[in-house]
Amino acid sequence: MASEAAADEASDTYSEFIDKVQRLSNVKQAGMVLAWDQEVMMPEGGTPARSKQRSALSTVAHELLTSDEMADLLDELEAEDLDDDQQAVVREIRRQHDRAAKVPQDLVEEISEVSSEAMPVWHEAKEDDDFSKFAPTLEKLVELKREYAEHIDPDRDPYEVLFEEYEPYLGIEKAEEVLQRLRDELVPLIDAIRESDADLATDTFEGDFDVDTQEDLTRDVLDTLGYDWDHGRLDTAPHPFSSGNQFDARVTTRFSPDEPLGALMATVHEFGHATYTLGLPREDYGTPLGESRDMTVHESQSRLWENHVGRSKPFWERFLPKVQDRFPEKVGDASVSDIYEAANEVYEDNLIRVEADELTYHMHIVVRFEIERDLIRGEIDVEDVPELWNDKYEEYLGIRPDSDAEGALQDIHWSHGDFGYFPTYSLGSVLAAQLFDTAEDDIENLDEKIADGEFDDLHDWLTENVHQHGSRYTTDELVRQATGEEYTADYFLDYVKSKYGDLYELDDYQ
Amino acid sequence: MASEAAADEASDTYSEFIDKVQRLSNVKQAGMVLAWDQEVMMPEGGTPARSKQRSALSTVAHELLTSDEMADLLDELEAEDLDDDQQAVVREIRRQHDRAAKVPQDLVEEISEVSSEAMPVWHEAKEDDDFSKFAPTLEKLVELKREYAEHIDPDRDPYEVLFEEYEPYLGIEKAEEVLQRLRDELVPLIDAIRESDADLATDTFEGDFDVDTQEDLTRDVLDTLGYDWDHGRLDTAPHPFSSGNQFDARVTTRFSPDEPLGALMATVHEFGHATYTLGLPREDYGTPLGESRDMTVHESQSRLWENHVGRSKPFWERFLPKVQDRFPEKVGDASVSDIYEAANEVYEDNLIRVEADELTYHMHIVVRFEIERDLIRGEIDVEDVPELWNDKYEEYLGIRPDSDAEGALQDIHWSHGDFGYFPTYSLGSVLAAQLFDTAEDDIENLDEKIADGEFDDLHDWLTENVHQHGSRYTTDELVRQATGEEYTADYFLDYVKSKYGDLYELDDYQ
Repeated sequence: MASEAAADEASDTYSEFIDKVQRLSNVKQAGMVLAWDQEVMMPEGGTPARSKQRSALSTVAHELLTSDEMADLLDELEAEDLDDDQQAVVREIRRQHDRAAKVPQDLVEEISEVSSEAMPVWHEAKEDDDFSKFAPTLEKLVELKREYAEHIDPDRDPYEVLFEEYEPYLGIEKAEEVLQRLRDELVPLIDAIRESDADLATDTFEGDFDVDTQEDLTRDVLDTLGYDWDHGRLDTAPHPFSSGNQFDARVTTRFSPDEPLGALMATVHEFGHATYTLGLPREDYGTPLGESRDMTVHESQSRLWENHVGRSKPFWERFLPKVQDRFPEKVGDASVSDIYEAANEVYEDNLIRVEADELTYHMHIVVRFEIERDLIRGEIDVEDVPELWNDKYEEYLGIRPDSDAEGALQDIHWSHGDFGYFPTYSLGSVLAAQLFDTAEDDIENLDEKIADGEFDDLHDWLTENVHQHGSRYTTDELVRQATGEEYTADYFLDYVKSKYGDLYELDDYQ
Repeated sequence: MASEAAADEASDTYSEFIDKVQRLSNVKQAGMVLAWDQEVMMPEGGTPARSKQRSALSTVAHELLTSDEMADLLDELEAEDLDDDQQAVVREIRRQHDRAAKVPQDLVEEISEVSSEAMPVWHEAKEDDDFSKFAPTLEKLVELKREYAEHIDPDRDPYEVLFEEYEPYLGIEKAEEVLQRLRDELVPLIDAIRESDADLATDTFEGDFDVDTQEDLTRDVLDTLGYDWDHGRLDTAPHPFSSGNQFDARVTTRFSPDEPLGALMATVHEFGHATYTLGLPREDYGTPLGESRDMTVHESQSRLWENHVGRSKPFWERFLPKVQDRFPEKVGDASVSDIYEAANEVYEDNLIRVEADELTYHMHIVVRFEIERDLIRGEIDVEDVPELWNDKYEEYLGIRPDSDAEGALQDIHWSHGDFGYFPTYSLGSVLAAQLFDTAEDDIENLDEKIADGEFDDLHDWLTENVHQHGSRYTTDELVRQATGEEYTADYFLDYVKSKYGDLYELDDYQ
């Protein structure tokens, strides 16, 4: 009897805890709706009120997460005998609570204010192509984020602490090892491609492509890929993104007449994010069990669909006719090889990350990673960034920016104070390859199914092995369970070497 | 020195109070964004998550409003020497706080649950044309709302207490007096119209009107009326509504091929609401000084634009050419009189409130008001409602519903537990006439300006006399200041008697 009473008590405590967790989650979700609306629907004049609304929701969420009641409940529950699911929820909320509670609210607000002010400063510096205008602000943000990390853990590398905001479980050592390997192995591959005489059909998509027709095509592609319109929608936004929950996961894209392939691939990328979100268990909405794992896993889903599906030959076997239907005069004569080559061209002289191809993209990330890591660790000074940036571009990509606007000022992230975020883009791509390789082993004739427009098996595999688990497992454990191996860059490197070795007829890589 | 210190202290207390008030307001505003999105943008499958998000924001808002800290701050501030603006803010928050704090949270949640469940029950009962299916639910809602009123004030008429949720300052006695006068004076007018031989050009808008062209026309009309697209947008929704704040006030409408005039007038109505919202002082966003007065005043703004502007001859002098441009084959030959008559037809046998004309509309309201008042007061039983409803329609409108679906089940409001809301529709129309009459006195040649598409003076007058004050003054005081008189039905009755007397050539009314 005593033990049953104890169990009831545990269950009462747990259910009080879950109420608070769900409220927190719903307030955050509300904030995401406000953010989506601001990007997609809000008239421009709405900004002053919207900023205050979003800030109020952030404050409410912060107070819910860091309240004494939440702290007490976590303490009590950690002393209880919980089942695995309950333990996972407590683990995730404990981590979020500790990070949030350790940082003084004043500092959080100061970072938020300095970032808000940093945005226009960064924008102007970029317009004027003058890094020195942004330098004092960047200096301040680096200091504040170092201070932020110190509150969370004064005994650890501050960059590690910041990185864990976006990828809490893989570990900075693993991340560094993977990024180092990408650098070591991709730089020679990129060099070899630059020296290749292969003649790819890179002009397949030249000309003006009507944007309404592009949108019609995009909706058709999303249909075939299995996007669930009862739980999603497609809109346009200045920067493609996805947002939502398992009941309502929306994607945005942008269309431009001269970039039909870019728009389509960007949409397939966002579709991958949305598909992850829609695969989260509905019955666990509002707790970590019904919330996605962090950036690495999320990005693995978008990259898997964008690169391993969307840039593959089987994909184009299915979709070339749809493109030709819409644009008969432009691509009526194109072959699957033509379109495959166009979709996988490695650009010779692109300096801009967001316009990069699948391969060189990672060198853009490695540059940013190395610089921001050393900045936060205090090993380099802000004033040295532009020169270092250009040197690294020359070393890793064989091209040197001749302006700050196309160099260290090109990305907005640092003006948000987002240090530690960039690496997850590459870590996600690496994971995408590892997951896709396993899926290919598990699903019979996956290539043929893709060519036939049958995506159910791939959806099922991803749902079973990734989506349905929400944040139940840590990232490393999730990878182990899904692939039977530790997280590794092997599959990604094999994939790009083989793919680009074939495309560019590289003897050393085929 | 002592008094300065005291003033500082008051000011610290006040600024702590204002922080909480603004947070509360922003959380409510966030809830409105979620509601707008749900009606206009959300994929249908998003409902389960959205309900939880909105419920979480309601709970957060309720806790912010009823917290001990808020109670203490109100107590302290009421003992301080505040200026007029500060006193107004304290008065409004005190009223909201007291109402919210007196009702147990359990009861609020029960009402919310029963209303949620009531919606589909009402819907099914209406589909099946069977009031008895809805009766037990209505009975329950009446009981719960009576209980709700009793918590707020056990010594007053419960209907009065509920009515004050929507119109807190005019007083139920004044409301009853006005509605009684409408009944007494409009029933004979409606009778006279029914007996009139006047032949109005009511077929001016017959046929199918392309909805895209209707939308183009509607946007043009909103442009000319002065809608600020930098702070607003137009979308379609199943039921037209407006929503937002002084930075972002949106309108929705619905288009149907056979109802071009209905869509346009509905949009002008919502434009009136949005114009009020956009006229609220921006610097007071987030406090009652920057929030609209209640339903009566809000509805006065929509009705003023819809009826006194949109259904007037000068309006059609300006806009008929725009309609003719879009639909030359349908209305190319129509005169201003034709279109004016079509816009002001009094329907002979319309049983449905939302399809009613400007005049008979108020009899629909009086029926609902009398029935819900007597229900809440316990003077009639739920089972008697359908018969009573039909009797009153026969008495006031000369037509008798032969089904519950077209009778007591037509409106959704009672299934929401919204008792006390209906009267504000008529009270707002009455105020619209009083305000418009004053504006006509104050603005030189207002009719000519409307005919010329010059609306600045009217906007300025409304902003100066109504919008800019937010909730600074109570409703009665606002009316007194704007019109120099007490709130009265005189102007409305004069207006409709003269307008319909002319239209229907009624000797006794010209």
